Amino acid sequence: MELENIAKIDVKRELRSSIPEIVYARGKRKEHLVEVAREIVKKKGYVIVTKCNGEQLALLKKEFPESSFQLRTVEETGTIYVRRSDYEPVKTGGKVGILTGGTADIPIAEEAKLIAECMGCDVYVAYDVGVAGIHRVFKPLVEMVRNGVDVVVVVAGMEGALPSVVSGLVDLPVIGVPTSTGYGMGGVGVGALLTMLQSCSLGVAVVNIDNGVGAGAMAALIANRVAAFRGKRLEGGR
Amino acid sequence: MELENIAKIDVKRELRSSIPEIVYARGKRKEHLVEVAREIVKKKGYVIVTKCNGEQLALLKKEFPESSFQLRTVEETGTIYVRRSDYEPVKTGGKVGILTGGTADIPIAEEAKLIAECMGCDVYVAYDVGVAGIHRVFKPLVEMVRNGVDVVVVVAGMEGALPSVVSGLVDLPVIGVPTSTGYGMGGVGVGALLTMLQSCSLGVAVVNIDNGVGAGAMAALIANRVAAFRGKRLEGGR
Amino acid sequence: MELENIAKIDVKRELRSSIPEIVYARGKRKEHLVEVAREIVKKKGYVIVTKCNGEQLALLKKEFPESSFQLRTVEETGTIYVRRSDYEPVKTGGKVGILTGGTADIPIAEEAKLIAECMGCDVYVAYDVGVAGIHRVFKPLVEMVRNGVDVVVVVAGMEGALPSVVSGLVDLPVIGVPTSTGYGMGGVGVGALLTMLQSCSLGVAVVNIDNGVGAGAMAALIANRVAAFRGKRLEGGR
Amino acid sequence: MELENIAKIDVKRELRSSIPEIVYARGKRKEHLVEVAREIVKKKGYVIVTKCNGEQLALLKKEFPESSFQLRTVEETGTIYVRRSDYEPVKTGGKVGILTGGTADIPIAEEAKLIAECMGCDVYVAYDVGVAGIHRVFKPLVEMVRNGVDVVVVVAGMEGALPSVVSGLVDLPVIGVPTSTGYGMGGVGVGALLTMLQSCSLGVAVVNIDNGVGAGAMAALIANRVAAFRGKRLEGGR
Amino acid sequence: MELENIAKIDVKRELRSSIPEIVYARGKRKEHLVEVAREIVKKKGYVIVTKCNGEQLALLKKEFPESSFQLRTVEETGTIYVRRSDYEPVKTGGKVGILTGGTADIPIAEEAKLIAECMGCDVYVAYDVGVAGIHRVFKPLVEMVRNGVDVVVVVAGMEGALPSVVSGLVDLPVIGVPTSTGYGMGGVGVGALLTMLQSCSLGVAVVNIDNGVGAGAMAALIANRVAAFRGKRLEGGR
Amino acid sequence: MELENIAKIDVKRELRSSIPEIVYARGKRKEHLVEVAREIVKKKGYVIVTKCNGEQLALLKKEFPESSFQLRTVEETGTIYVRRSDYEPVKTGGKVGILTGGTADIPIAEEAKLIAECMGCDVYVAYDVGVAGIHRVFKPLVEMVRNGVDVVVVVAGMEGALPSVVSGLVDLPVIGVPTSTGYGMGGVGVGALLTMLQSCSLGVAVVNIDNGVGAGAMAALIANRVAAFRGKRLEGGR
Amino acid sequence: MELENIAKIDVKRELRSSIPEIVYARGKRKEHLVEVAREIVKKKGYVIVTKCNGEQLALLKKEFPESSFQLRTVEETGTIYVRRSDYEPVKTGGKVGILTGGTADIPIAEEAKLIAECMGCDVYVAYDVGVAGIHRVFKPLVEMVRNGVDVVVVVAGMEGALPSVVSGLVDLPVIGVPTSTGYGMGGVGVGALLTMLQSCSLGVAVVNIDNGVGAGAMAALIANRVAAFRGKRLEGGR
Amino acid sequence: MELENIAKIDVKRELRSSIPEIVYARGKRKEHLVEVAREIVKKKGYVIVTKCNGEQLALLKKEFPESSFQLRTVEETGTIYVRRSDYEPVKTGGKVGILTGGTADIPIAEEAKLIAECMGCDVYVAYDVGVAGIHRVFKPLVEMVRNGVDVVVVVAGMEGALPSVVSGLVDLPVIGVPTSTGYGMGGVGVGALLTMLQSCSLGVAVVNIDNGVGAGAMAALIANRVAAFRGKRLEGGR
Repeated sequence: MELENIAKIDVKRELRSSIPEIVYARGKRKEHLVEVAREIVKKKGYVIVTKCNGEQLALLKKEFPESSFQLRTVEETGTIYVRRSDYEPVKTGGKVGILTGGTADIPIAEEAKLIAECMGCDVYVAYDVGVAGIHRVFKPLVEMVRNGVDVVVVVAGMEGALPSVVSGLVDLPVIGVPTSTGYGMGGVGVGALLTMLQSCSLGVAVVNIDNGVGAGAMAALIANRVAAFRGKRLEGGR
Repeated sequence: MELENIAKIDVKRELRSSIPEIVYARGKRKEHLVEVAREIVKKKGYVIVTKCNGEQLALLKKEFPESSFQLRTVEETGTIYVRRSDYEPVKTGGKVGILTGGTADIPIAEEAKLIAECMGCDVYVAYDVGVAGIHRVFKPLVEMVRNGVDVVVVVAGMEGALPSVVSGLVDLPVIGVPTSTGYGMGGVGVGALLTMLQSCSLGVAVVNIDNGVGAGAMAALIANRVAAFRGKRLEGGR
Repeated sequence: MELENIAKIDVKRELRSSIPEIVYARGKRKEHLVEVAREIVKKKGYVIVTKCNGEQLALLKKEFPESSFQLRTVEETGTIYVRRSDYEPVKTGGKVGILTGGTADIPIAEEAKLIAECMGCDVYVAYDVGVAGIHRVFKPLVEMVRNGVDVVVVVAGMEGALPSVVSGLVDLPVIGVPTSTGYGMGGVGVGALLTMLQSCSLGVAVVNIDNGVGAGAMAALIANRVAAFRGKRLEGGR
Repeated sequence: MELENIAKIDVKRELRSSIPEIVYARGKRKEHLVEVAREIVKKKGYVIVTKCNGEQLALLKKEFPESSFQLRTVEETGTIYVRRSDYEPVKTGGKVGILTGGTADIPIAEEAKLIAECMGCDVYVAYDVGVAGIHRVFKPLVEMVRNGVDVVVVVAGMEGALPSVVSGLVDLPVIGVPTSTGYGMGGVGVGALLTMLQSCSLGVAVVNIDNGVGAGAMAALIANRVAAFRGKRLEGGR
Repeated sequence: MELENIAKIDVKRELRSSIPEIVYARGKRKEHLVEVAREIVKKKGYVIVTKCNGEQLALLKKEFPESSFQLRTVEETGTIYVRRSDYEPVKTGGKVGILTGGTADIPIAEEAKLIAECMGCDVYVAYDVGVAGIHRVFKPLVEMVRNGVDVVVVVAGMEGALPSVVSGLVDLPVIGVPTSTGYGMGGVGVGALLTMLQSCSLGVAVVNIDNGVGAGAMAALIANRVAAFRGKRLEGGR
Repeated sequence: MELENIAKIDVKRELRSSIPEIVYARGKRKEHLVEVAREIVKKKGYVIVTKCNGEQLALLKKEFPESSFQLRTVEETGTIYVRRSDYEPVKTGGKVGILTGGTADIPIAEEAKLIAECMGCDVYVAYDVGVAGIHRVFKPLVEMVRNGVDVVVVVAGMEGALPSVVSGLVDLPVIGVPTSTGYGMGGVGVGALLTMLQSCSLGVAVVNIDNGVGAGAMAALIANRVAAFRGKRLEGGR
Repeated sequence: MELENIAKIDVKRELRSSIPEIVYARGKRKEHLVEVAREIVKKKGYVIVTKCNGEQLALLKKEFPESSFQLRTVEETGTIYVRRSDYEPVKTGGKVGILTGGTADIPIAEEAKLIAECMGCDVYVAYDVGVAGIHRVFKPLVEMVRNGVDVVVVVAGMEGALPSVVSGLVDLPVIGVPTSTGYGMGGVGVGALLTMLQSCSLGVAVVNIDNGVGAGAMAALIANRVAAFRGKRLEGGR
Repeated sequence: MELENIAKIDVKRELRSSIPEIVYARGKRKEHLVEVAREIVKKKGYVIVTKCNGEQLALLKKEFPESSFQLRTVEETGTIYVRRSDYEPVKTGGKVGILTGGTADIPIAEEAKLIAECMGCDVYVAYDVGVAGIHRVFKPLVEMVRNGVDVVVVVAGMEGALPSVVSGLVDLPVIGVPTSTGYGMGGVGVGALLTMLQSCSLGVAVVNIDNGVGAGAMAALIANRVAAFRGKRLEGGR
């Protein structure tokens, strides 16, 4: 029977080697979550857990005390990164820029930053540079271009217009992340998402509302592919 | 009986004297529409008919030949302004600026312009200055400020971000008009409308999608109130 | 490189001088919020903080005790205005009318009032005059017209029909503010918002659901522009 | 077997005797439609066909020529009423009032009128009395009350606020009919429907967008029940 | 000035005399709510307060102790009826039937019952007779018809199909009340509301989701108008 | 490399042998469509093409003239079944019942019937038995049960309540198919779909709006699995 | 009178004998819920209560202590199954497969499993085999086919693509259950539901979001019908 | 005045040099469109015009005859690429893979291909490899990886699940393009868009429905940045 042959296939995780080990906490029982996290840390040296509620976050912090582990958390989004002291993450040389429209967008940006850094990238950030004072975006953008970023993540709630503006100014792929800030109609991020989907600027793609993790991963995949060749060039150039 | 007393009241149209005579064509039988238009032109010297379909527009043009009447039309939106040669419209001195994000927004802007001018205002326009090339908006905006406009109408489809940007740059009331350009999700103007409702800039209010008539009237009401006192001042100053 | 030149530009806040200093509290960490507020009060003499949750509001009240500061709060919306005793706000002479349909709309109206007053306007209010008893709106409206208001803010939830009715009665710009009162389908303010966007009366523009701040600012911008010339006239007339 | 017993039941149509014979044309093949209509006219003396497209309407007019039949049509809604010359409809004495907000709402009102009259009611109408000029509604409403109407159908598109206003003025059941006039967001009748569902006035129930047939039938059911007793009283009084 | 004349009009509440005194609690400060309720009870002998939260309900119960007042409450919906012992409500002779699809719909039905009874009607109820066991509805419906009800309120959540079925069986006006029971897509009452709006049966009108108050008032308005003439007939018949 | 191994797998179509060859016409260029259809008929003896527009349908009829091929079409849905004269379809013995609420639902029901028959089933139909006259459904349902149907497809537009009612009466799996009949809000089938998703009766699953093809295939899959064992039993019983 | 005859009918529950006794807890007062449950357990030997909140669940556990009753609960969904020790459930021989995309979907799958088992089926499960690692689904699916399952329930949140994939691989009816996992736009299960409704694979029908109960019942109805004949065949084969 | 300084800035188009000259045809008057196109071809050697209607497309073909110009068109989407014979486009070495789920998605894929090729990339395509037969995607994907593509564009309508599956298999950035194929609820591409936004696989970002142009540009921006360094390396390696 054909179907049985298919069942024997096992696509090795290595095919997707650059995507880090991320555990999605929502809906997981807390004991189970801790166990899964412990096992991954043991095997891989680190783990990222996302969308923890307060209780889950507290439990993970208790399980992995700062005395023995390197921790990074984004409290507002319930993201935690745990690393064994003896584990040394690889640096890829990929370069990611991250901008936010307002201060309320920062936690989502921090989530993206955490993921991109875990995937080996250098991350450059500039926060609170939204369209209501459009001139504020120029300076940090120039600096990012100077620093050679390969891709720009733009996190924005409310009217969500910043990715369009940024994409209209630079020749880099832009990843828009709508956030659930805002109020009234379209205020849970829907307005911002639609704005980004409607962008007149070419060179913008989006992830879902508040999906800092997805944006960080997408940006790092792009930057790392560039870096793979930039790196080789440098070596080759010697 | 109390209700009968109420019924005797007749709020004179003069209370709303600055709103021009506008006939909404949609759903009106064509003979009826022409008759209504004819009567208003006879009484008031002019009429504005909005949302005509092709047939209605053709009929009105036939009824009011350019040989005998002054005509202005916005073909794309089905708006037509008819004026008797002997009717001289009043100039109020109100000043309205109108900007559009793209070229596809121009017919709606023209509709707003027509209404504002019929209400006696001077109108200053700058088209195709949207956020995908954000620097293009600076120059016409400065000129409008120099010309002393009292209010700015900003017409934009797609991501609809231009009103936020404009409002963040000048100290004038901004009226956002989302247009039904765009594509895919949020593409019939919904995305642009939500963007404008979500604006982080203070000083933006909106009208419905493609409602150039409403925006023009609102802008003219504002500008004319300013002009009423600006005018008096000048006289008073003499 | 061109982009670098742009980056050097710094559009001075003075261009937008009539918009007051408003801090959006949502999503801000409480220590950070207090610090930002303290700094602005120090520099400007006052601050407005909007969308505070209970904890943030309490903290601000503690930071700025009534013994040393002038405070005004709208508890339901989490709005607070703090003023140093030695700071004297400017009066512009702009005149704003505010109406509400029901009693549940009052907090949003109060928010609009606070902003408009901070921007120097005189504000005239009439609450609970909605369409279910349409005759109640006539009297306060006549008084507002007599008092010379330049613009009318109409706050209404449920069916949200009041702005249309008001706009049909007076020759003034009307700013509609839908509120999230109501129940069932369309009950979080969506029904009211759509009603206002669909208004048959010319001369209505809207802000988003519960956006008292935005309505107050828009109204004050309009009223202050009128007042600028009314004021000069009076002086000039002497 | 129990289910078989149920299957033998035949609830006679007479239980629903006051609802007229209405054929819903949409999706019916034209030959089939004509055949069905012919059969009903033969048996009952009349038929009402609703939601005809142009072709269906033309075919029915050809099948039932005005030389041999009494016809009434509402062209815009594709409604047609056909009556054999020898068929004499019953008059119930029920009294229905119908109001519209604008002129574009008239076809739906006419549809409601046709149904209510076919169900034996006297119908009193007043068109184009919407909230943008709210004073216009007072006079016809007083007349309707004087004429003793038992129920008021209020047809309104755009902001759809008229049913609330009417219900706030009189002590009669009000049936709101939103129409698909309007533009932009909420413009296919959704805004008007939500407005009516949100009504603050007690005594309003609604039917679906453009459902003049349903409103007419509901109104007639109410008026006829009142009339049944009003009639008896008069007889009893003799 | 014309507008001033309008302002002098005061449509007396008596025009709407059959609508009971209902206070909408949501958004009212608790002290204010109690005060308003106290005043109405003093003047009218009773009050109905709707949409109370727990705290408001408790406060009202404390203000109007059962020792001195007649109380009726629907805890789930936050509705309370308070009556002075010396106040004797009028009986109109209007007859209202109320059905529910499930048990979860009962509180909304009770709310409708309370209002209709306060407006003087006799109310007949049958609960939990929904379409999943369609045969259960026949018996209570026959009894209601025998009892001479003038109108049937049908309260249903989930698929909301009961009003259509009932309307297809009897020759009475049916008022559909969708409830916010249900789950998943369309589960907050939207599915039930749409079902009722789409009803193929003629003779159904609807109120908004969970609006038991509105349904009760609408039903009582209808039943009382019938009763007005039925009553007179009986007297006349003697 | 692992991925390459996966790429070599070819899950034979035989695993899905009972699903007939269906070509989805929408978006296919007409020449390409005809070519694909011709090839399948050649190889398999028959083909089903769905969602043809008028032009595509005409072309296919020309390509496969009735003189040489067996044809069945559902004009309204653009479905066509073409069979070579020498091809003899298999009969499985599966039994499917199909009901519709109204006459406008018939084309979708016919589409389901065509697919189920092509998959070898016997199909029993009863049309126009909807909830507005709920008693009409009893008789055909009893007959279907007597005929031993294994599954019932219920096609219904408007309020879409029929599947719930049917599922409450019989012990068979029910597949609900909402249709895009109806009007106003929820009228493109959304109301009917939500109703079915909200069904209180256990034993209902749904397919998308107007998806007669999907419903027919699902029903046939169920019936054929039953028939596989019913058939064997009969043989075994000999 | 005809209607009275209908009212006498009582469709016996036996017609729907294979649907288990399920009590829907939401909206039921707790004392009433316990009483209903107690009565059913007394009469039938068991009861299933769904959608309990925490308090209701605790109360039921106290009423039916594990010392005297067999209990099964799905805590996350508030489902509880209570069985008297002396009650022996029937085994039908129906075979149901259940798959989930992720771990967060497991409670809904467990709910479906509970229902299907209560209806006498054998249930085979495989959890966390979603499309992000599509190869993981092959092996369990082959095993299910080998085990002879008659129908597959596929529970999936997020993008909800698993039912399509499964249906494309096997010749069995697939019941899709979207779950309310996910985030941002479409994240309460709407995205997953739409995906399943849009499935290109023939042989998928869906139930509402998180409706494990409905999916389990539908699957058991199908499997039991197959088993009825499979069982007879085996007997007949002896 | 500060604003004037800003107005003098002119961000040179060169900053966005890799984005090709694209003219959006919708809403442009035909003469204007042709003129704009002519001018760009004159200056740049080529032009891309998107979203042309039939008339616009015909006009452009007439203006730029194949005898004198190189043309490429995607008829279904109204996209046309015009190149002067003497203009030689640059090759960047960027490599883009494009997959579609079905045949109806091909025009959108072709649009993306056209843009990416105009931006200098090599494009590898594989069409009709959707999830209903998931095994079909493996082979072309392996080939794309072997060919060294830098980014994969996945175009899919209906359930839109293909981007998730692809992203779960390879270590490359994936750009999802939902298409407006499909039917019923979610059928204009909304279902597919939500699916992609909900993707559980990390490494997916999306553009709006049917936005082949945007996807092609985003992919080319990514691929070209990679190629910039890959190219240098090769040179450097010599």
